[in-house]
Amino acid sequence: MNEQIKIAQFGLGPIGLESLKLAATKPWASIVGGVDLDPAKVGKDLGALAGVEALRGLPVCATVEDLLGRAQLDVVLHTTVSKFKDAFVQLEPLARRGVSVVSTCEQLIFPQLKERELAAKLDKMCQESGARIVGAGVNPGFVMDVLPLCLTGVSRQVRHIRIERVVNASTRRGPLQKKIGSGLPSGEFRRLFEAGHLGHAGLKESLALIAHSLGWSLEEITETGEAVLAERDIRTRFVEVKRGLTCGLHQHAEGKVKGQTVLVLDLKMYLEAPNPRDVIQIEGDPPLTVALEGGVAGDSATVGSLVNTARRIRQAPPGLRLPTELALPFWA
Amino acid sequence: MNEQIKIAQFGLGPIGLESLKLAATKPWASIVGGVDLDPAKVGKDLGALAGVEALRGLPVCATVEDLLGRAQLDVVLHTTVSKFKDAFVQLEPLARRGVSVVSTCEQLIFPQLKERELAAKLDKMCQESGARIVGAGVNPGFVMDVLPLCLTGVSRQVRHIRIERVVNASTRRGPLQKKIGSGLPSGEFRRLFEAGHLGHAGLKESLALIAHSLGWSLEEITETGEAVLAERDIRTRFVEVKRGLTCGLHQHAEGKVKGQTVLVLDLKMYLEAPNPRDVIQIEGDPPLTVALEGGVAGDSATVGSLVNTARRIRQAPPGLRLPTELALPFWA
Repeated sequence: MNEQIKIAQFGLGPIGLESLKLAATKPWASIVGGVDLDPAKVGKDLGALAGVEALRGLPVCATVEDLLGRAQLDVVLHTTVSKFKDAFVQLEPLARRGVSVVSTCEQLIFPQLKERELAAKLDKMCQESGARIVGAGVNPGFVMDVLPLCLTGVSRQVRHIRIERVVNASTRRGPLQKKIGSGLPSGEFRRLFEAGHLGHAGLKESLALIAHSLGWSLEEITETGEAVLAERDIRTRFVEVKRGLTCGLHQHAEGKVKGQTVLVLDLKMYLEAPNPRDVIQIEGDPPLTVALEGGVAGDSATVGSLVNTARRIRQAPPGLRLPTELALPFWA
Repeated sequence: MNEQIKIAQFGLGPIGLESLKLAATKPWASIVGGVDLDPAKVGKDLGALAGVEALRGLPVCATVEDLLGRAQLDVVLHTTVSKFKDAFVQLEPLARRGVSVVSTCEQLIFPQLKERELAAKLDKMCQESGARIVGAGVNPGFVMDVLPLCLTGVSRQVRHIRIERVVNASTRRGPLQKKIGSGLPSGEFRRLFEAGHLGHAGLKESLALIAHSLGWSLEEITETGEAVLAERDIRTRFVEVKRGLTCGLHQHAEGKVKGQTVLVLDLKMYLEAPNPRDVIQIEGDPPLTVALEGGVAGDSATVGSLVNTARRIRQAPPGLRLPTELALPFWA
């Protein structure tokens, strides 16, 4: 790396701050500032907020326009929202100015699924300005999409892919323990899940990314979500769940071609889940079964993915990019 | 894929013919001919040689120059030799004419290790002509280098990587059963291994590719190879091994930074090896342990890797490329 990449952090919540701290340790990166919508953070010293001496004197701005008025900028690490529609208004000014973005926005893993027109619009802006925008993360972004696709790189034939992820939510952050419905009666879980207010965002996007990449035209994508009920009282640092109430979820998506199920993504995230793991099974030639013991730890890996991708993004052609269109991001 | 990629197969041995047959099934590929140095094959009908009706009427030429005189050509699948020095003379005329190459040549996975000057020379030719040249395969090329690197894509920190591959050679082709020394007395195995006449080619290249990618300057790379001796008489379709003679090998490479071993690649390939598997262990944050049950089958996966990479190679910038510099190759 001959030249340092000028990086700003957009979104200064827990994941954003961890990403910022990691990026600050990289010899190829130079941090220029932060952006957050929270008035309590705007105007603060970024180094003080992050607890990183080397970032002292850098601004926390309310908008990217404000930051762009003060500093040159190559890549933004974006960690604010899950929906592409909500991210769009934050990404647009960056795309217009040729600033590249790596984002944890779950729908950005395959934004064409829910927002085809908005995706085309953002892509066009990027092509005109020279910006690259891409989603990253561990799930979606790796375990249930990019890693299985990477494995098919040695396949002569692929007939069916099944991916199973089991997360012991007791080991995760408070917001995740709440996002999976912990403590809710099962009826309330169902209501909120169906309204899209809880559950894992991005399962359908992972499935759609795999299908798109392999050239499979799915005639149907189905997704279901069920509450997992506590078999005994559970207490974590963040939540308390009485026996019989929701302690997490079982989310499941399938894709069909010509009436045959060819893609199965099965995700269980609940408190005290035994034997956490990621398992990828590819039916084809050669058959491949890959198991990640213990599973890939969500938060650490998301931060890693975001920063590692930032290093590689400018080698991709300008545009709104899929994670599979980048040169392999690896740690460095 | 809007336009078909015009492909020729250079090297019409078993792996070459399988690659040709696979490429012939791809809607994105159009086969234009074959090249082989063997006078018994030159002038034959490619379709007859491969047993593929759709390839009837295509030529088998003695040289790429000959083929280039008859057909336009985008990408060559190259399956002839293990040493980059030997491959160079075959690749040079292609590089000069802007024809891209995906090759199973083991040393091409990281040609800078043994032939830095030749690699720079070939890279320069490619940059001038617009050609891309890259190595592909399952090992080297995937299990012990690209896949571990892909896994570090979600790492915040990497301290140590250990990769273990155990291949049951009884399930593999005759040439591989011989390449691992089957039937030799252990002294003869040692002599031939030390002279570079047998053993797995590319272990040091895999190690060097990982180190280069992660930015680790290794002060030392060590490689050892030992015979595995048959505990009883073994007979396969291709070889017979008496008890006490060599039935395969145990090859081991390590890389050190500041006196600390940071990379370990351990390969066992022998007849009747129990529990064949690939295991990747990454010490870092998050820690990652990945197991491929049964291991990735060598020959099928090599053919898959070659053809899948051919589809992606023209999206990389011109030059002699490392496998890690391409957009993720996946099956399609």
